[in-house]
Amino acid sequence: MTTPFPIYLDCDTGIDDALALAYLLAAPAADVKGIGTVSGNVSAAVGARNTLDLLELAGSAHIPVALGAHHPLAGSFGGGAPWVHGENGIGEVYLAPAEASLAGESAAEILVRLARLYPGTLRVVAIGPLTNIAEALRLEPALPSLVDTVTVMGGAALAPGNITPVAEANIHNDPEAAALVLAADWDVTLVPLDVTMASVLEEDHRQALLASSAPVPRALGEMLGYYFRFYEGIYGRPCSAMHDPLAAALAVGAVTPAVAPVVRAAVDTSDGPGRGQTICDMRGLYAGYPPVRGARCRVVLTLEEDFAPHLVETLLDHHAGAESTTAVLAEAGTAV
Amino acid sequence: MTTPFPIYLDCDTGIDDALALAYLLAAPAADVKGIGTVSGNVSAAVGARNTLDLLELAGSAHIPVALGAHHPLAGSFGGGAPWVHGENGIGEVYLAPAEASLAGESAAEILVRLARLYPGTLRVVAIGPLTNIAEALRLEPALPSLVDTVTVMGGAALAPGNITPVAEANIHNDPEAAALVLAADWDVTLVPLDVTMASVLEEDHRQALLASSAPVPRALGEMLGYYFRFYEGIYGRPCSAMHDPLAAALAVGAVTPAVAPVVRAAVDTSDGPGRGQTICDMRGLYAGYPPVRGARCRVVLTLEEDFAPHLVETLLDHHAGAESTTAVLAEAGTAV
Repeated sequence: MTTPFPIYLDCDTGIDDALALAYLLAAPAADVKGIGTVSGNVSAAVGARNTLDLLELAGSAHIPVALGAHHPLAGSFGGGAPWVHGENGIGEVYLAPAEASLAGESAAEILVRLARLYPGTLRVVAIGPLTNIAEALRLEPALPSLVDTVTVMGGAALAPGNITPVAEANIHNDPEAAALVLAADWDVTLVPLDVTMASVLEEDHRQALLASSAPVPRALGEMLGYYFRFYEGIYGRPCSAMHDPLAAALAVGAVTPAVAPVVRAAVDTSDGPGRGQTICDMRGLYAGYPPVRGARCRVVLTLEEDFAPHLVETLLDHHAGAESTTAVLAEAGTAV
Repeated sequence: MTTPFPIYLDCDTGIDDALALAYLLAAPAADVKGIGTVSGNVSAAVGARNTLDLLELAGSAHIPVALGAHHPLAGSFGGGAPWVHGENGIGEVYLAPAEASLAGESAAEILVRLARLYPGTLRVVAIGPLTNIAEALRLEPALPSLVDTVTVMGGAALAPGNITPVAEANIHNDPEAAALVLAADWDVTLVPLDVTMASVLEEDHRQALLASSAPVPRALGEMLGYYFRFYEGIYGRPCSAMHDPLAAALAVGAVTPAVAPVVRAAVDTSDGPGRGQTICDMRGLYAGYPPVRGARCRVVLTLEEDFAPHLVETLLDHHAGAESTTAVLAEAGTAV
């Protein structure tokens, strides 16, 4: 077993952020060193509260959580998406309030500090709007040379958007920040709706989480009930996409992309109908995406394997112990 | 055999426009009543010259050809795409100059006249920028109630663009006109790059055209040599997309769409990086495109059958006679 990757997680917790966090706490390849929150699914403050409570539930209250940007770089926070994530952001599931409190740093500050502490090895996992990452680039212009990898859940390359016909919510919530992050001097792995909407968690998987004897999988299963109700309007059946946990798994190399061309990418920061669109230049499609000089954005379009079984297995194995996992899966009558 | 549909063709001839024109002259379901040209692949004037010469070659010099808009509604004509279509627009193939001359009307005027002449039955096939169609809507606000169907080759719904990462050339060449056409009080069938880039003419098909004893298929085969060289950079082999002829075939019902949802569609007329993008709201994708209230744009994404054999067969059957077609196909060693 190799040393796990030090991780900085930037999130707007959020039901699928909760899944991503629980996944990173469970994944052997990940060592979460710090977390920053940003307004997106919920306000940065509510996201921080949810993150602290989840860490406490998972026995990981030692991980520092820093409050990040409330407003995007331009304009102001729009109030989140309670119809997707619930008023409290985690599907109206009420966790015991954590005793731990917020770090004294901002999210951008903790990212910069961790990048200096783990030079060349820190992996940045950004699963909310990119305001904090853009702010960290301003605080430390050398950030691109300090971090190992940057993985962003966001955008829609050839798939429809989810907040407008062409824009995905994380990027749309702060297009100016996303433009700065994609233009910075680093390679970015983008995990867009193309692959996250094709990575579906089904009711059987949710039942397996609910049947766990451990509190974290059970809480996630309960939150997913809310999330499934929203996604029933999208897929026509109770299930959900797995945006954020997939980005987390790709960031630690636990999932293998199948088609993931490296292309030029920019963000529409105009005030036109395309505002917030992540414009990925996919014109190489017809020749199997030949290399593009100067391109630095790896767009994950498909995976080698279905992600849901790996996600559920990892959550159950870690949080409930391998032995009880088997029992739980048998009970739920599902193969994961 | 039912009465063929009266057709108004609006084009910027163009190699694939030449294919579309020859197809409509050959298709039993089509009766081309008038043609207007517009600047796009070439200037409106060069397109008109090519159209007249092709009609003469095909023995259809009686069909009126009207000169349309040189400039788009905003800005000015950008000079066309000689790297795709050749300096003369038809792949440096030089046809005998036609004796017939241009109609005394403008393209918009001939469209309005034909719509009044064939109320409720005229089918509009627009395979260039939509400047003339927008102008006709201004001349005759009742145009939507006069025409039967409107079929537009243009846009990219889930596929990449071809002139920018997100914009298709016909729409990008006059976004303001396209926005007016899509907002008018009629249903539009959009034939975007999603389906035209998947409808590929191969070298075997081109050889079958070249082996014909008739001048029109031979001329088209020669033009396609130029077109194939451009598309070799896109597909990685000598072949081509069939944008315009596919729109023509769909307009007369000779080809059956497989997936063709009716969605809301608009055009990005901003000055941002999305300018000229046809923003189709494809968010119904995951539930099999349920009906959308007020949606009026049918976006053809896939076909029931491969289009190339039908196109080649129609061109050879009509222009060379069915008997010689069989011989030609046998010579070329291809199955169409």
